[in-house]
Amino acid sequence: MRTVDPIKHEQKRQEILAAAIRCALRSGLKGTSTSDICAEAKISPGHLYHYFENKDAIFAGLAETKLNELTERLRRNIEAGGATLEAISAAVRAASEASWHRDEYALVFEMLAEAVRSPAMASLLRKTGDAMRAVLANAFREGQKNGEFDKTLDPALASAAVLGMIDAAKAFALRYPETSRAERAAFLDLLMARLLAPGSCPAAKAAPRHVAVAKRKVRAS
Amino acid sequence: MRTVDPIKHEQKRQEILAAAIRCALRSGLKGTSTSDICAEAKISPGHLYHYFENKDAIFAGLAETKLNELTERLRRNIEAGGATLEAISAAVRAASEASWHRDEYALVFEMLAEAVRSPAMASLLRKTGDAMRAVLANAFREGQKNGEFDKTLDPALASAAVLGMIDAAKAFALRYPETSRAERAAFLDLLMARLLAPGSCPAAKAAPRHVAVAKRKVRAS
Repeated sequence: MRTVDPIKHEQKRQEILAAAIRCALRSGLKGTSTSDICAEAKISPGHLYHYFENKDAIFAGLAETKLNELTERLRRNIEAGGATLEAISAAVRAASEASWHRDEYALVFEMLAEAVRSPAMASLLRKTGDAMRAVLANAFREGQKNGEFDKTLDPALASAAVLGMIDAAKAFALRYPETSRAERAAFLDLLMARLLAPGSCPAAKAAPRHVAVAKRKVRAS
Repeated sequence: MRTVDPIKHEQKRQEILAAAIRCALRSGLKGTSTSDICAEAKISPGHLYHYFENKDAIFAGLAETKLNELTERLRRNIEAGGATLEAISAAVRAASEASWHRDEYALVFEMLAEAVRSPAMASLLRKTGDAMRAVLANAFREGQKNGEFDKTLDPALASAAVLGMIDAAKAFALRYPETSRAERAAFLDLLMARLLAPGSCPAAKAAPRHVAVAKRKVRAS
Protein backbone atom coordinates (compact mmCIF):
# COMPACT_ATOMS: atom_id res chain seq x y z
CA MET A 1 0.00 0.00 0.00
CA ARG A 2 1.20 3.51 -0.85
CA THR A 3 1.67 5.61 2.30
CA VAL A 4 1.53 9.43 2.22
CA ASP A 5 3.94 11.51 4.31
CA PRO A 6 1.74 14.48 5.30
CA ILE A 7 4.67 16.90 5.57
CA LYS A 8 6.06 15.97 2.16
CA HIS A 9 2.55 16.08 0.71
CA GLU A 10 2.00 19.62 1.99
CA GLN A 11 5.47 20.66 0.81
CA LYS A 12 4.71 19.42 -2.71
CA ARG A 13 1.30 21.09 -2.59
CA GLN A 14 2.97 24.42 -1.78
CA GLU A 15 5.49 23.90 -4.61
CA ILE A 16 2.63 23.37 -7.05
CA LEU A 17 0.87 26.52 -5.82
CA ALA A 18 4.08 28.56 -6.15
CA ALA A 19 4.43 27.25 -9.73
CA ALA A 20 0.78 28.13 -10.43
CA ILE A 21 1.34 31.68 -9.13
CA ARG A 22 4.37 32.12 -11.42
CA CYS A 23 2.26 30.92 -14.39
CA ALA A 24 -0.67 33.20 -13.47
CA LEU A 25 1.54 36.27 -13.07
CA ARG A 26 3.07 35.53 -16.47
CA SER A 27 -0.02 34.62 -18.50
CA GLY A 28 -3.02 35.57 -16.37
CA LEU A 29 -5.39 33.20 -14.60
CA LYS A 30 -7.44 32.45 -17.69
CA GLY A 31 -4.30 32.06 -19.76
CA THR A 32 -2.91 29.38 -17.43
CA SER A 33 -3.69 25.74 -18.27
CA THR A 34 -3.22 22.67 -16.09
CA SER A 35 -0.43 21.53 -18.39
CA ASP A 36 1.35 24.93 -17.97
CA ILE A 37 1.25 24.37 -14.20
CA CYS A 38 2.51 20.77 -14.58
CA ALA A 39 5.40 21.94 -16.76
CA GLU A 40 6.30 24.76 -14.34
CA ALA A 41 6.07 22.45 -11.29
CA LYS A 42 7.85 19.59 -13.14
CA ILE A 43 5.07 17.14 -12.33
CA SER A 44 2.90 14.80 -14.44
CA PRO A 45 -0.84 15.51 -14.82
CA GLY A 46 -1.65 12.20 -13.10
CA HIS A 47 0.58 13.17 -10.18
CA LEU A 48 -0.97 16.68 -9.98
CA TYR A 49 -4.38 15.22 -9.18
CA HIS A 50 -3.02 13.65 -6.00
CA TYR A 51 -2.76 17.23 -4.73
CA PHE A 52 -5.65 19.13 -6.33
CA GLU A 53 -9.02 17.88 -7.50
CA ASN A 54 -9.19 20.23 -10.49
CA LYS A 55 -7.99 23.56 -11.87
CA ASP A 56 -10.54 25.55 -9.85
CA ALA A 57 -9.05 24.06 -6.67
CA ILE A 58 -5.53 25.08 -7.77
CA PHE A 59 -6.69 28.62 -8.53
CA ALA A 60 -8.47 28.89 -5.18
CA GLY A 61 -5.33 27.59 -3.44
CA LEU A 62 -3.21 30.11 -5.33
CA ALA A 63 -5.52 32.96 -4.32
CA GLU A 64 -5.51 31.73 -0.71
CA THR A 65 -1.71 31.75 -0.61
CA LYS A 66 -1.51 35.30 -2.01
CA LEU A 67 -4.29 36.72 0.15
CA ASN A 68 -3.14 35.04 3.36
CA GLU A 69 0.26 36.64 2.82
CA LEU A 70 -1.46 40.03 2.55
CA THR A 71 -3.54 39.47 5.69
CA GLU A 72 -0.51 38.36 7.68
CA ARG A 73 1.48 41.37 6.54
CA LEU A 74 -1.41 43.64 7.54
CA ARG A 75 -1.74 41.98 10.96
CA ARG A 76 1.98 42.38 11.67
CA ASN A 77 2.01 46.01 10.49
CA ILE A 78 -0.98 46.92 12.64
CA GLU A 79 0.45 45.17 15.70
CA ALA A 80 3.70 47.09 15.24
CA GLY A 81 2.11 50.50 14.59
CA GLY A 82 -0.89 50.70 16.91
CA ALA A 83 -4.43 51.95 16.32
CA THR A 84 -3.85 55.52 15.14
CA LEU A 85 -5.11 56.80 11.79
CA GLU A 86 -1.57 57.34 10.59
CA ALA A 87 -0.36 53.93 11.67
CA ILE A 88 -3.31 52.03 10.21
CA SER A 89 -3.12 53.99 6.95
CA ALA A 90 0.58 53.16 6.81
CA ALA A 91 -0.12 49.50 7.57
CA VAL A 92 -2.76 49.23 4.84
CA ARG A 93 -0.48 51.07 2.43
CA ALA A 94 2.50 48.85 3.24
CA ALA A 95 0.39 45.71 2.87
CA SER A 96 -0.88 46.90 -0.50
CA GLU A 97 2.42 48.28 -1.75
CA ALA A 98 4.11 44.91 -1.43
CA SER A 99 1.90 43.76 -4.27
CA TRP A 100 2.02 46.97 -6.30
CA HIS A 101 3.07 45.40 -9.53
CA ARG A 102 0.75 45.58 -12.51
CA ASP A 103 0.74 41.81 -13.01
CA GLU A 104 -0.36 41.36 -9.40
CA TYR A 105 -3.24 43.82 -9.81
CA ALA A 106 -4.37 42.00 -12.90
CA LEU A 107 -4.30 38.73 -10.95
CA VAL A 108 -6.50 40.18 -8.18
CA PHE A 109 -9.06 41.44 -10.68
CA GLU A 110 -9.03 38.11 -12.47
CA MET A 111 -9.72 36.41 -9.13
CA LEU A 112 -12.70 38.72 -8.58
CA ALA A 113 -14.01 37.98 -12.07
CA GLU A 114 -13.43 34.24 -11.56
CA ALA A 115 -15.56 34.31 -8.38
CA VAL A 116 -18.67 34.69 -10.56
CA ARG A 117 -18.02 31.36 -12.24
CA SER A 118 -16.09 29.34 -9.65
CA PRO A 119 -17.73 28.56 -6.28
CA ALA A 120 -14.27 27.57 -4.95
CA MET A 121 -12.90 31.04 -5.79
CA ALA A 122 -16.01 32.77 -4.41
CA SER A 123 -15.77 31.01 -1.06
CA LEU A 124 -12.03 31.62 -0.89
CA LEU A 125 -12.43 35.37 -1.53
CA ARG A 126 -15.11 35.48 1.13
CA LYS A 127 -12.95 33.65 3.67
CA THR A 128 -9.77 35.68 3.13
CA GLY A 129 -11.72 38.95 2.87
CA ASP A 130 -13.39 38.22 6.21
CA ALA A 131 -10.03 37.43 7.81
CA MET A 132 -8.62 40.74 6.62
CA ARG A 133 -11.73 42.61 7.77
CA ALA A 134 -11.50 41.05 11.23
CA VAL A 135 -7.93 42.39 11.60
CA LEU A 136 -9.05 45.85 10.50
CA ALA A 137 -12.28 45.92 12.53
CA ASN A 138 -10.35 45.08 15.72
CA ALA A 139 -7.95 47.94 15.10
CA PHE A 140 -10.86 50.32 14.39
CA ARG A 141 -12.56 49.40 17.67
CA GLU A 142 -9.35 50.18 19.52
CA GLY A 143 -8.89 53.43 17.57
CA GLN A 144 -12.46 54.48 18.37
CA LYS A 145 -11.78 54.02 22.09
CA ASN A 146 -8.83 56.40 21.97
CA GLY A 147 -10.66 58.93 19.76
CA GLU A 148 -8.54 58.39 16.66
CA PHE A 149 -11.45 57.20 14.56
CA ASP A 150 -14.97 58.42 14.08
CA LYS A 151 -17.06 56.72 16.79
CA THR A 152 -20.21 56.79 14.65
CA LEU A 153 -18.63 54.50 12.07
CA ASP A 154 -19.43 50.82 12.35
CA PRO A 155 -16.09 48.92 12.46
CA ALA A 156 -17.46 46.01 10.43
CA LEU A 157 -18.73 48.32 7.70
CA ALA A 158 -15.57 50.41 7.76
CA SER A 159 -13.48 47.27 7.34
CA ALA A 160 -15.48 46.36 4.23
CA ALA A 161 -14.95 49.89 2.95
CA VAL A 162 -11.18 49.73 3.49
CA LEU A 163 -11.03 46.44 1.61
CA GLY A 164 -12.87 48.24 -1.19
CA MET A 165 -10.39 51.11 -1.09
CA ILE A 166 -7.47 48.74 -1.51
CA ASP A 167 -9.28 47.45 -4.63
CA ALA A 168 -9.92 51.06 -5.72
CA ALA A 169 -6.23 51.94 -5.40
CA LYS A 170 -5.34 48.97 -7.61
CA ALA A 171 -7.88 50.00 -10.24
CA PHE A 172 -6.51 53.56 -10.08
CA ALA A 173 -3.00 52.21 -10.75
CA LEU A 174 -4.25 50.26 -13.77
CA ARG A 175 -6.10 53.28 -15.19
CA TYR A 176 -3.14 55.63 -14.54
CA PRO A 177 -0.04 53.45 -14.93
CA GLU A 178 2.26 56.50 -15.11
CA THR A 179 1.50 57.52 -11.52
CA SER A 180 4.29 56.84 -9.03
CA ARG A 181 4.11 54.72 -5.89
CA ALA A 182 4.04 57.93 -3.85
CA GLU A 183 1.02 59.19 -5.78
CA ARG A 184 -0.82 55.90 -5.34
CA ALA A 185 0.01 55.96 -1.64
CA ALA A 186 -1.39 59.52 -1.38
CA PHE A 187 -4.58 58.39 -3.13
CA LEU A 188 -5.04 55.49 -0.69
CA ASP A 189 -4.20 57.70 2.32
CA LEU A 190 -6.79 60.27 1.28
CA LEU A 191 -9.50 57.63 0.96
CA MET A 192 -8.59 56.13 4.35
CA ALA A 193 -8.49 59.51 6.09
CA ARG A 194 -11.83 60.63 4.69
CA LEU A 195 -13.43 57.38 5.71
CA LEU A 196 -12.02 57.02 9.21
CA ALA A 197 -11.23 60.44 10.64
CA PRO A 198 -13.55 61.88 13.27
CA GLY A 199 -15.42 64.87 11.88
CA SER A 200 -18.85 66.12 11.08
CA CYS A 201 -19.36 64.00 7.96
CA PRO A 202 -23.12 63.57 8.19
CA ALA A 203 -23.61 60.11 6.77
CA ALA A 204 -21.18 58.26 9.02
CA LYS A 205 -24.13 56.29 10.32
CA ALA A 206 -24.85 53.72 7.66
CA ALA A 207 -28.19 52.14 6.86
CA PRO A 208 -28.76 49.83 9.85
CA ARG A 209 -29.70 46.74 7.88
CA HIS A 210 -26.55 46.94 5.80
CA VAL A 211 -24.36 47.38 8.85
CA ALA A 212 -25.93 44.32 10.45
CA VAL A 213 -24.99 42.22 7.45
CA ALA A 214 -21.43 43.46 7.45
CA LYS A 215 -21.14 42.72 11.16
CA ARG A 216 -22.44 39.22 10.79
CA LYS A 217 -19.81 38.56 8.15
CA VAL A 218 -16.94 39.59 10.36
CA ARG A 219 -18.25 37.52 13.23
CA ALA A 220 -18.59 34.47 10.99
CA SER A 221 -14.92 34.59 10.01
CA MET B 1 -14.29 48.82 -56.96
CA ARG B 2 -16.11 47.94 -53.75
CA THR B 3 -17.71 51.03 -52.18
CA VAL B 4 -18.42 51.25 -48.45
CA ASP B 5 -21.58 52.89 -47.17
CA PRO B 6 -20.36 54.55 -43.94
CA ILE B 7 -23.75 54.32 -42.21
CA LYS B 8 -24.17 50.63 -42.99
CA HIS B 9 -20.54 50.02 -42.01
CA GLU B 10 -21.06 51.64 -38.59
CA GLN B 11 -24.35 49.77 -38.15
CA LYS B 12 -22.65 46.43 -38.78
CA ARG B 13 -19.79 47.42 -36.48
CA GLN B 14 -22.28 48.08 -33.68
CA GLU B 15 -24.00 44.75 -34.35
CA ILE B 16 -20.65 42.95 -34.00
CA LEU B 17 -19.92 44.79 -30.73
CA ALA B 18 -23.36 43.89 -29.36
CA ALA B 19 -22.69 40.25 -30.26
CA ALA B 20 -19.26 40.44 -28.59
CA ILE B 21 -20.84 41.85 -25.40
CA ARG B 22 -23.34 38.97 -25.31
CA CYS B 23 -20.48 36.47 -25.69
CA ALA B 24 -18.36 38.18 -23.01
CA LEU B 25 -21.24 38.31 -20.51
CA ARG B 26 -21.84 34.59 -21.14
CA SER B 27 -18.28 33.24 -21.14
CA GLY B 28 -16.06 36.06 -19.87
CA LEU B 29 -13.65 38.14 -21.91
CA LYS B 30 -10.88 35.54 -21.86
CA GLY B 31 -13.38 32.78 -22.63
CA THR B 32 -14.57 34.54 -25.81
CA SER B 33 -12.86 33.65 -29.09
CA THR B 34 -13.08 35.42 -32.42
CA SER B 35 -15.04 32.49 -33.82
CA ASP B 36 -17.56 32.75 -30.93
CA ILE B 37 -18.11 36.38 -31.90
CA CYS B 38 -18.44 35.47 -35.59
CA ALA B 39 -21.03 32.79 -34.78
CA GLU B 40 -22.99 35.15 -32.51
CA ALA B 41 -22.89 37.99 -35.07
CA LYS B 42 -23.55 35.60 -37.99
CA ILE B 43 -20.54 36.84 -39.92
CA SER B 44 -17.52 35.11 -41.50
CA PRO B 45 -14.03 35.62 -40.01
CA GLY B 46 -12.89 37.21 -43.28
CA HIS B 47 -15.81 39.63 -43.13
CA LEU B 48 -15.13 40.42 -39.43
CA TYR B 49 -11.72 41.84 -40.27
CA HIS B 50 -13.32 44.53 -42.45
CA TYR B 51 -14.61 45.98 -39.17
CA PHE B 52 -11.96 45.19 -36.57
CA GLU B 53 -8.23 44.72 -36.95
CA ASN B 54 -7.98 42.03 -34.26
CA LYS B 55 -9.58 40.64 -31.10
CA ASP B 56 -7.99 43.34 -28.90
CA ALA B 57 -9.72 45.98 -31.03
CA ILE B 58 -13.09 44.21 -30.61
CA PHE B 59 -12.61 43.98 -26.84
CA ALA B 60 -11.63 47.65 -26.62
CA GLY B 61 -14.70 48.55 -28.72
CA LEU B 62 -16.89 46.43 -26.47
CA ALA B 63 -15.53 48.14 -23.36
CA GLU B 64 -15.98 51.55 -24.99
CA THR B 65 -19.64 50.82 -25.76
CA LYS B 66 -20.34 49.65 -22.19
CA LEU B 67 -18.43 52.48 -20.50
CA ASN B 68 -19.80 55.22 -22.76
CA GLU B 69 -23.30 54.07 -21.82
CA LEU B 70 -22.35 54.43 -18.16
CA THR B 71 -20.87 57.91 -18.67
CA GLU B 72 -23.93 59.08 -20.60
CA ARG B 73 -26.26 57.76 -17.93
CA LEU B 74 -24.21 59.54 -15.27
CA ARG B 75 -24.22 62.80 -17.22
CA ARG B 76 -28.01 62.70 -17.70
CA ASN B 77 -28.62 61.81 -14.03
CA ILE B 78 -26.41 64.64 -12.80
CA GLU B 79 -27.99 67.16 -15.16
CA ALA B 80 -31.43 66.13 -13.91
CA GLY B 81 -30.56 66.10 -10.19
CA GLY B 82 -28.22 69.04 -9.63
CA ALA B 83 -25.01 69.34 -7.65
CA THR B 84 -26.12 68.31 -4.17
CA LEU B 85 -24.51 65.44 -2.25
CA GLU B 86 -27.76 63.53 -2.30
CA ALA B 87 -28.39 64.06 -6.00
CA ILE B 88 -24.85 63.16 -7.05
CA SER B 89 -24.80 60.09 -4.81
CA ALA B 90 -28.13 59.05 -6.34
CA ALA B 91 -26.79 59.68 -9.85
CA VAL B 92 -23.67 57.61 -9.23
CA ARG B 93 -25.75 54.89 -7.64
CA ALA B 94 -28.24 54.83 -10.49
CA ALA B 95 -25.44 54.72 -13.06
CA SER B 96 -23.81 51.82 -11.23
CA GLU B 97 -27.02 49.95 -10.44
CA ALA B 98 -27.93 49.65 -14.08
CA SER B 99 -24.98 47.29 -14.41
CA TRP B 100 -25.43 45.53 -11.07
CA HIS B 101 -25.43 42.04 -12.40
CA ARG B 102 -22.66 39.69 -11.39
CA ASP B 103 -21.70 38.92 -14.99
CA GLU B 104 -21.28 42.64 -15.62
CA TYR B 105 -19.00 43.08 -12.62
CA ALA B 106 -16.90 40.18 -13.78
CA LEU B 107 -16.62 41.83 -17.19
CA VAL B 108 -15.41 45.13 -15.67
CA PHE B 109 -12.73 43.36 -13.63
CA GLU B 110 -11.67 41.36 -16.66
CA MET B 111 -11.32 44.64 -18.57
CA LEU B 112 -9.10 46.02 -15.80
CA ALA B 113 -6.98 42.86 -15.83
CA GLU B 114 -6.80 42.96 -19.63
CA ALA B 115 -5.43 46.53 -19.51
CA VAL B 116 -2.10 45.14 -18.26
CA ARG B 117 -1.65 43.10 -21.41
CA SER B 118 -3.54 45.04 -24.08
CA PRO B 119 -2.49 48.63 -24.91
CA ALA B 120 -5.83 49.07 -26.74
CA MET B 121 -7.75 48.21 -23.56
CA ALA B 122 -5.46 50.36 -21.40
CA SER B 123 -5.97 53.45 -23.56
CA LEU B 124 -9.71 52.83 -23.77
CA LEU B 125 -10.04 52.57 -19.97
CA ARG B 126 -8.03 55.76 -19.64
CA LYS B 127 -10.20 57.61 -22.14
CA THR B 128 -13.58 56.52 -20.76
CA GLY B 129 -12.40 56.96 -17.15
CA ASP B 130 -11.32 60.51 -17.92
CA ALA B 131 -14.67 61.27 -19.57
CA MET B 132 -16.53 60.04 -16.50
CA ARG B 133 -14.20 61.98 -14.20
CA ALA B 134 -14.77 65.19 -16.17
CA VAL B 135 -18.55 64.86 -15.65
CA LEU B 136 -18.03 64.28 -11.91
CA ALA B 137 -15.40 66.98 -11.44
CA ASN B 138 -17.69 69.59 -13.03
CA ALA B 139 -20.50 68.66 -10.68
CA PHE B 140 -18.11 68.80 -7.68
CA ARG B 141 -16.94 72.28 -8.62
CA GLU B 142 -20.55 73.44 -8.74
CA GLY B 143 -21.33 71.66 -5.44
CA GLN B 144 -18.34 73.33 -3.81
CA LYS B 145 -19.62 76.76 -4.84
CA ASN B 146 -22.96 76.16 -3.13
CA GLY B 147 -21.35 74.62 -0.02
CA GLU B 148 -22.62 71.08 -0.61
CA PHE B 149 -19.15 69.61 -0.90
CA ASP B 150 -15.97 70.01 1.06
CA LYS B 151 -14.13 72.99 -0.49
CA THR B 152 -10.71 71.61 0.48
CA LEU B 153 -11.18 68.58 -1.74
CA ASP B 154 -9.65 68.74 -5.19
CA PRO B 155 -12.42 67.98 -7.74
CA ALA B 156 -10.05 66.09 -10.03
CA LEU B 157 -8.80 63.90 -7.21
CA ALA B 158 -12.30 63.41 -5.82
CA SER B 159 -13.51 62.31 -9.24
CA ALA B 160 -10.77 59.65 -9.35
CA ALA B 161 -11.81 58.55 -5.88
CA VAL B 162 -15.47 58.23 -6.87
CA LEU B 163 -14.49 56.12 -9.87
CA GLY B 164 -12.57 53.95 -7.40
CA MET B 165 -15.59 53.70 -5.14
CA ILE B 166 -17.75 52.46 -7.98
CA ASP B 167 -15.12 49.74 -8.48
CA ALA B 168 -15.09 49.09 -4.73
CA ALA B 169 -18.87 48.63 -4.65
CA LYS B 170 -18.61 46.08 -7.45
CA ALA B 171 -15.87 44.15 -5.62
CA PHE B 172 -18.02 44.25 -2.47
CA ALA B 173 -20.92 42.71 -4.39
CA LEU B 174 -18.69 39.92 -5.69
CA ARG B 175 -17.31 39.16 -2.22
CA TYR B 176 -20.77 39.30 -0.60
CA PRO B 177 -23.18 38.08 -3.27
CA GLU B 178 -26.00 37.60 -0.76
CA THR B 179 -26.23 41.36 -0.06
CA SER B 180 -29.23 43.10 -1.60
CA ARG B 181 -29.24 46.03 -4.00
CA ALA B 182 -30.32 48.27 -1.11
CA GLU B 183 -27.33 47.16 0.96
CA ARG B 184 -24.93 47.75 -1.91
CA ALA B 185 -26.49 51.16 -2.47
CA ALA B 186 -26.00 52.00 1.23
CA PHE B 187 -22.36 50.94 0.99
CA LEU B 188 -21.76 53.20 -2.02
CA ASP B 189 -23.68 56.10 -0.41
CA LEU B 190 -21.57 55.85 2.73
CA LEU B 191 -18.32 55.96 0.75
CA MET B 192 -19.54 58.95 -1.28
CA ALA B 193 -20.76 60.87 1.75
CA ARG B 194 -17.54 60.32 3.70
CA LEU B 195 -15.50 61.44 0.74
CA LEU B 196 -17.46 64.50 -0.32
CA ALA B 197 -19.29 65.97 2.67
CA PRO B 198 -17.93 69.16 4.20
CA GLY B 199 -16.54 68.48 7.65
CA SER B 200 -13.39 68.58 9.68
CA CYS B 201 -11.80 65.49 8.14
CA PRO B 202 -8.15 66.53 8.46
CA ALA B 203 -6.67 64.98 5.35
CA ALA B 204 -9.01 66.50 2.82
CA LYS B 205 -6.03 68.31 1.37
CA ALA B 206 -4.22 65.67 -0.63
CA ALA B 207 -0.51 65.48 -1.31
CA PRO B 208 0.02 68.37 -3.75
CA ARG B 209 2.00 66.45 -6.35
CA HIS B 210 -0.65 63.77 -6.60
CA VAL B 211 -3.42 66.30 -7.01
CA ALA B 212 -1.53 67.95 -9.82
CA VAL B 213 -1.31 64.68 -11.70
CA ALA B 214 -4.99 63.94 -11.28
CA LYS B 215 -5.85 67.43 -12.53
CA ARG B 216 -3.72 67.10 -15.60
CA LYS B 217 -5.52 63.86 -16.46
CA VAL B 218 -8.93 65.44 -16.37
CA ARG B 219 -7.82 68.39 -18.45
CA ALA B 220 -6.29 66.12 -21.08
CA SER B 221 -9.59 64.30 -21.63
